[in-house]
Amino acid sequence: MSEESKVSGIDQAQYTANVNRRDFLRRAVIGGVVGAGLWSKLGAAEPGQHDKDINTRLFTFIGGQVGPWSIVTVKTITGEALPVAERLDVVNGPVSASPDGAKWILRGVTSNARYTTRQEKDQLTAIQPAVGRPTATCSALIPIRKNAQWWGLSQDQRREIFEERSHHIKTGLGYLPAVARRLHHCRDLGENEPFDFLTWFEYARADAVAFDELVARLRATEEWTYVDREIDMRLVRDGG
Amino acid sequence: MSEESKVSGIDQAQYTANVNRRDFLRRAVIGGVVGAGLWSKLGAAEPGQHDKDINTRLFTFIGGQVGPWSIVTVKTITGEALPVAERLDVVNGPVSASPDGAKWILRGVTSNARYTTRQEKDQLTAIQPAVGRPTATCSALIPIRKNAQWWGLSQDQRREIFEERSHHIKTGLGYLPAVARRLHHCRDLGENEPFDFLTWFEYARADAVAFDELVARLRATEEWTYVDREIDMRLVRDGG
Repeated sequence: MSEESKVSGIDQAQYTANVNRRDFLRRAVIGGVVGAGLWSKLGAAEPGQHDKDINTRLFTFIGGQVGPWSIVTVKTITGEALPVAERLDVVNGPVSASPDGAKWILRGVTSNARYTTRQEKDQLTAIQPAVGRPTATCSALIPIRKNAQWWGLSQDQRREIFEERSHHIKTGLGYLPAVARRLHHCRDLGENEPFDFLTWFEYARADAVAFDELVARLRATEEWTYVDREIDMRLVRDGG
Repeated sequence: MSEESKVSGIDQAQYTANVNRRDFLRRAVIGGVVGAGLWSKLGAAEPGQHDKDINTRLFTFIGGQVGPWSIVTVKTITGEALPVAERLDVVNGPVSASPDGAKWILRGVTSNARYTTRQEKDQLTAIQPAVGRPTATCSALIPIRKNAQWWGLSQDQRREIFEERSHHIKTGLGYLPAVARRLHHCRDLGENEPFDFLTWFEYARADAVAFDELVARLRATEEWTYVDREIDMRLVRDGG
């Protein structure tokens, strides 16, 4: 099936599904209470209705023609490329699927750390900076997917490769507080996602070479032999 | 804001958002390729269009008036109750939000195990049965949420409580292969979900007492002191 006919199919079904959904909502409210699971489902689909008071863990990365970040370089390290986009917008929460000129939309949620020990977590917390520093005018968006073999490993095997043999946390600690980092998980968003993680980094122009070194060191590890899709985007902020 | 006015708000926005989404899809295809992230987003919202060839990890539990499972008892163990429903339908994949008489919809994804060691995983794999056995005419749906303190712990602390101190895996192993189990994760679906996990169990009528014992033993553990919402539903299948 071509991309185009897929669109037509969804387009048509979209209309029908929405009519059904509206009817359902009316009925469900008459019947009693609509489960919160449904509310959140609608919230994900209808971003305009998202309650601004809720501090959502969901972030949406929109590659297109708008946004404060200018995409300077894009390297497809492993696997399929992404369409070319000029700018990046990062939105906290879901978005309506209508941004002008968007070429791709990637979503991920911040979550609990999966591998850090108490000691490592305390070390990280003590020195890692938050994203959004005015001096951090450079950024990197590196979406990553790991293969089925990785996900078939047990927790202790993954930890062993991740830290004891690849020193992921230890290596990263050496670049703090220069590099701010936010990890977004995609794998359990519910459907088959194009990536497992969206990794996001912010740093000052003077630290760009150090960041290159960090990425090169991680890519040379055993952990990275499980990566089957990776794209490395570098960006600069307006005024940066 | 009342539940009713929330519905009206979403209802109205729904229409607008869909018109925008259709326009966006047409433009994005003209421009090149729509990122898979968007496809999956639409997939989640438009279940009828879900590719049947893809073996989705998403499951939808619909409490209402239809489905093969009759809900026999519902106990709110901790936290807020769910609306009363008569029957349960379990769908592999997303659903259109239109099932007649639905009182609640809960979603979760199967995922990689977060705590099991290689040895434990091998033990489990060797003896755990799949769901769907004809003899397993009884089931339990137990949605669970853990509190912020739990999620703020590090991986090694959670593992320590989960297994070394609460013996979750070891206890569960003692009830295999009588009890089939499928764990669904909700916490990282993207929005604020009502539960972190949907736990689903299937067993023969003769094993119902043993299952009660298993649940009671787990509820008495240190791990369960972190549970801040839990509902225990017991069901029987038609003909069971």
